[in-house]
Amino acid sequence: MLRLRLELAYDGGGFAGWAAQPGLRTVQGEVEQALATVLRVPIALTVAGRTDAGVHAIGQVAHADVPAEAWSAVGPTLLRSLAGVLPTDVRVTAVAPAPLGFDARFSAAFRRYAYRVADAPWGADPLRRHDTLAWPRPLDSAGLRTAAAALLGEHDFAAFCRRREGASTVRTLQSLDWNRDPDGVLVATVQADAFCHMMVRGLVGAMLAVGDGRRPASWPAALLATRERAGAVAVAPPHGLTLVAVGYPPDAELATQAERTRRRR
Amino acid sequence: MLRLRLELAYDGGGFAGWAAQPGLRTVQGEVEQALATVLRVPIALTVAGRTDAGVHAIGQVAHADVPAEAWSAVGPTLLRSLAGVLPTDVRVTAVAPAPLGFDARFSAAFRRYAYRVADAPWGADPLRRHDTLAWPRPLDSAGLRTAAAALLGEHDFAAFCRRREGASTVRTLQSLDWNRDPDGVLVATVQADAFCHMMVRGLVGAMLAVGDGRRPASWPAALLATRERAGAVAVAPPHGLTLVAVGYPPDAELATQAERTRRRR
Repeated sequence: MLRLRLELAYDGGGFAGWAAQPGLRTVQGEVEQALATVLRVPIALTVAGRTDAGVHAIGQVAHADVPAEAWSAVGPTLLRSLAGVLPTDVRVTAVAPAPLGFDARFSAAFRRYAYRVADAPWGADPLRRHDTLAWPRPLDSAGLRTAAAALLGEHDFAAFCRRREGASTVRTLQSLDWNRDPDGVLVATVQADAFCHMMVRGLVGAMLAVGDGRRPASWPAALLATRERAGAVAVAPPHGLTLVAVGYPPDAELATQAERTRRRR
Repeated sequence: MLRLRLELAYDGGGFAGWAAQPGLRTVQGEVEQALATVLRVPIALTVAGRTDAGVHAIGQVAHADVPAEAWSAVGPTLLRSLAGVLPTDVRVTAVAPAPLGFDARFSAAFRRYAYRVADAPWGADPLRRHDTLAWPRPLDSAGLRTAAAALLGEHDFAAFCRRREGASTVRTLQSLDWNRDPDGVLVATVQADAFCHMMVRGLVGAMLAVGDGRRPASWPAALLATRERAGAVAVAPPHGLTLVAVGYPPDAELATQAERTRRRR
């Protein structure tokens, strides 16, 4: 068997999330089916970030184990073949044999998400309305940055996670920045070793309450300190959120990183 | 009466073009209706660029004449009120009393369009697929630029216009550049004093045949020289095209410019 490393981009608006579910249109379901069609073997994908319904990706990473002869029969023509088979709201943007020890989920050193919010009085650019939240009140970027800075580092993020799933909610928030892009849209860039369920949207929801003046800048960090699911947080809607990148260590450390992650979760 | 100057943005995908037509959903129809609702007076819009079905805009300009008291009753709150009334695929992004002599159509000194083409083997970014053409073959940007340069200046563009409408097809192509954006998408930026019907899409269609090697770089200019509607040109599809800006002279020259344009057309 040969392990393939795939990169994917999708518009989450038409999918019930990443994970395959019977009777629902999912990204995993569509991509596994397209790969099986082109490679003529059954496919099971392992993904770096299991995005929720409505959440987008431009830098998703996954792996699949396939017979070496299935890959050698198509090789570099696979990308163009998949482009013809897949619906246009999901694309496989890169595919190649994975380096030794690579695991899309467990070798990952970080996930990076972007959340786009338009606070202009007229709303969001119609051409970006599918991946931009229109916020009805002006947002203060200085307040957003102050609130963000107090959340950095290793913490138990239970306050911002939808459910514990029996697993740890301790995560390391490596960076969290708010910047206005040239069109005036506020973009939060959030990077962590991993995220618990709904964590980015919970954090963004809490910070938006700071940004439009309803809460003090210290509020999100105060919620964090409770280490308990915070009912007061309005989770931000999914369509503003995009998984932009997944980071991996150098090839020589892929196996060690995977082992370390498996032990911790 | 008071003349209002409006700026508009829309996703053309859901509209049968700008111009109001009975029984069809048009940008003009939606915006006139929303303005009439908020201002409580009948509204007739005059637009700078009458975009076709499926063509987008981020910098469209229009004007409307309204009773001064209708404007003073709403004033600067108009933008937010319109945002609540309009569907999210069209936005009024700015509105203010127009300077003396302003005519959205006849005072305009130039229209600028962008055409986006993705030539990656995997296609177009799913989140931009509504305003980006996926081209199935690699495009050579040097060839595109050579073809473009030969089209600049004042010419009879009849070869690239769908129909004459009894009017002149002499236009001045002020600039025509092809550049790859950071994501690898090729963007043609096309600016002229005005465009005849289908002119940008005809030019782009001819240049794409050069870019992917089916025609020599001299071909679009050779077509232009015929001054007759060229059947060999595959007009590029509408969804890659966006009206990005309309330019006007300084306020003191608005009336003169409008008079000059009216004489010429």
